[in-house]
Amino acid sequence: MLPDQQLLRIPGPTPIPPSVQRAMAQPMIGHRGGETKELLHAIRPRLRPIFGTDQEVLVITGSGTSGLETAVVNTVQPGDEVLVVVTGAFGDRFTKICDAYQINAHRYDVEWGKAVDPNSIKQYLQDHPQIKVVFTTYCETSTGVLNPIKEIAEAVHNHSDALLVVDGVSCVGGVETKMDEWGIDVLVTGSQKAMMLPAGLTFIAASNRAWKVIEANQQSRFYLDLRKYRDNQLKDSTPFTPGLSLLFGLDQVLLLIEEEGLANVYARHRLMMEMTREAFRALKVPLLTSEIAASPTVTAIKPEDFKAEDLRKVVKQEFGLSVAGGQQHMKGEIFRIGHMGYCSPADVLQVIGAMEIGLKKVGKEIELGRGTRAAQEVYLNY
Amino acid sequence: MLPDQQLLRIPGPTPIPPSVQRAMAQPMIGHRGGETKELLHAIRPRLRPIFGTDQEVLVITGSGTSGLETAVVNTVQPGDEVLVVVTGAFGDRFTKICDAYQINAHRYDVEWGKAVDPNSIKQYLQDHPQIKVVFTTYCETSTGVLNPIKEIAEAVHNHSDALLVVDGVSCVGGVETKMDEWGIDVLVTGSQKAMMLPAGLTFIAASNRAWKVIEANQQSRFYLDLRKYRDNQLKDSTPFTPGLSLLFGLDQVLLLIEEEGLANVYARHRLMMEMTREAFRALKVPLLTSEIAASPTVTAIKPEDFKAEDLRKVVKQEFGLSVAGGQQHMKGEIFRIGHMGYCSPADVLQVIGAMEIGLKKVGKEIELGRGTRAAQEVYLNY
Repeated sequence: MLPDQQLLRIPGPTPIPPSVQRAMAQPMIGHRGGETKELLHAIRPRLRPIFGTDQEVLVITGSGTSGLETAVVNTVQPGDEVLVVVTGAFGDRFTKICDAYQINAHRYDVEWGKAVDPNSIKQYLQDHPQIKVVFTTYCETSTGVLNPIKEIAEAVHNHSDALLVVDGVSCVGGVETKMDEWGIDVLVTGSQKAMMLPAGLTFIAASNRAWKVIEANQQSRFYLDLRKYRDNQLKDSTPFTPGLSLLFGLDQVLLLIEEEGLANVYARHRLMMEMTREAFRALKVPLLTSEIAASPTVTAIKPEDFKAEDLRKVVKQEFGLSVAGGQQHMKGEIFRIGHMGYCSPADVLQVIGAMEIGLKKVGKEIELGRGTRAAQEVYLNY
Repeated sequence: MLPDQQLLRIPGPTPIPPSVQRAMAQPMIGHRGGETKELLHAIRPRLRPIFGTDQEVLVITGSGTSGLETAVVNTVQPGDEVLVVVTGAFGDRFTKICDAYQINAHRYDVEWGKAVDPNSIKQYLQDHPQIKVVFTTYCETSTGVLNPIKEIAEAVHNHSDALLVVDGVSCVGGVETKMDEWGIDVLVTGSQKAMMLPAGLTFIAASNRAWKVIEANQQSRFYLDLRKYRDNQLKDSTPFTPGLSLLFGLDQVLLLIEEEGLANVYARHRLMMEMTREAFRALKVPLLTSEIAASPTVTAIKPEDFKAEDLRKVVKQEFGLSVAGGQQHMKGEIFRIGHMGYCSPADVLQVIGAMEIGLKKVGKEIELGRGTRAAQEVYLNY
């Protein structure tokens, strides 16, 4: 193995583009001075197309979970009943946050690897009209499932007055997201996935309906009080000391996304997903998710005739290639390849080429190059 | 194409390892202070194993050509007759330097893509006993030929009193080199190839026999006077302002090489060469060099049924993958893939995977994945 080479293909944190690394290496500046004001002013409007919203996208210094907690403490108060749709480990996290705040959370579990059926949400809300907020996950990182948010939003809004809160951490920036058009009330993402930054920023926007709830909400909160972020950000400021180097990097990330074009960014992610899926299909290693539930940002694979952990170990050892394992009850059952953010079709070919060697090494009978060919065919026909 | 992604696979400059980038980003220090002295003291002995010598390996701030000129102006004076073995563009460069100094250079041309036959050198020296220095190239970057330096040294020393000067720019650090054992009198390399640094340093060592010639040499020289470098370096100093950030980087490069182990570094380069060669053989795209003349650091490919420049353009456009074209009369005839320095077998798989798509795009009839499979088989059987 080549020392100092990391092939980081977990579903976040993801590799940082060199120009973003350079941007983050800028010297610190005063966070209350004119330069930071200008930086925030330049960044603010450019986050909106990524969320698909005309609302202000607020930037909080904290990791993704702080964004999820922000969504909870700003929209719900003790005694409220909410519905948490759990399609994997990150849906589960919403229930843990609700538990910590003594929120009466109805948990709706979906088999890991499957997307939630919007009809079941509709039915649940009709049966439980007291539900005030529905928490759901756009891309469930732990399984590579992309939930049908547009249809979920329809189900929620056509059959209840509940707000729809969406955890978009592992896909927003890599997958088309239309917050306003679809009717998402609160959308959260993090910096360390398709946003190509280290962890440390979380982004959150709220609909007008959500803002009414947020304003009226009695839940105690201080650092995560969204009103403070909105009131400051509208004046190109932040309520608390911001993670400045991440803001320097964010400015450059937005430039890269604008240079490529959002539509091309989304197409690249879909292409990388298709390449990955076709490769493993060709190699006869089963995918965890069906075509319709698959996320363009992460692919989970569920081997039947070898141990996922053995393959992970061998590719790490041979190539410095990191892919993720399973979480919770999926531990040891699956492995997950991240293909989001600063990741190209050529990187996917590299992962597959290395994986084929890994598969041979763990004793799987494959035709070498077969997965690569399948991925190449997807690329050429795209 | 992903913005900000460079897949740099030309035969130098090569990608810089991230830890080396970080090392080079250290703040400047005084170049006459104790810290620089310590740095030079730490670096000096660690260059010797790479050259395979017990001599001091001198560090000059300048690019590879300044090292070649150093070799000329320190060993030869006007009126001297020398033999320049030209196996490609860089052998040719030695003749240009000799011309600039009115040196009587006999030029011995070898067909590009072939290595020099040591017997022909022996014959030439027997026919021209007045030759004082033989200039030759270890790896000829322009063709990917590795000349048989050990056998050339035998031919030179057994049949003449001439010194043997070797340009090792595009392979020293990636290919086993035994300066003392083989009898190389002056060996030169640069920083931007297997040494994993940006261009800006050149490394040069001389045998005892060579030092006698250097001391006596009447040729005018100032910046490139090797005696100045030796006298200063033995005191952990430099005669002129050194390229300090490159020295910071060099310290880290040596650490990486030591961590991997020189034998493993050499084995990795041979493996990458074999993977590349087998891949193109399997794809039925002809290699320029024979097995025996091939360099572990760069592979030249000479397509017959498509244009090399078309393929170079398409892989650059699709993947940001840079491979080199031909030089001089080989321009448009060949393309060259660098696989040296900070380059791993997984990187070679990426290049081949991307190249296969490029080959399809330029209309070459290939079986996708066939080259990848061949490279993977080499890896697994290594």
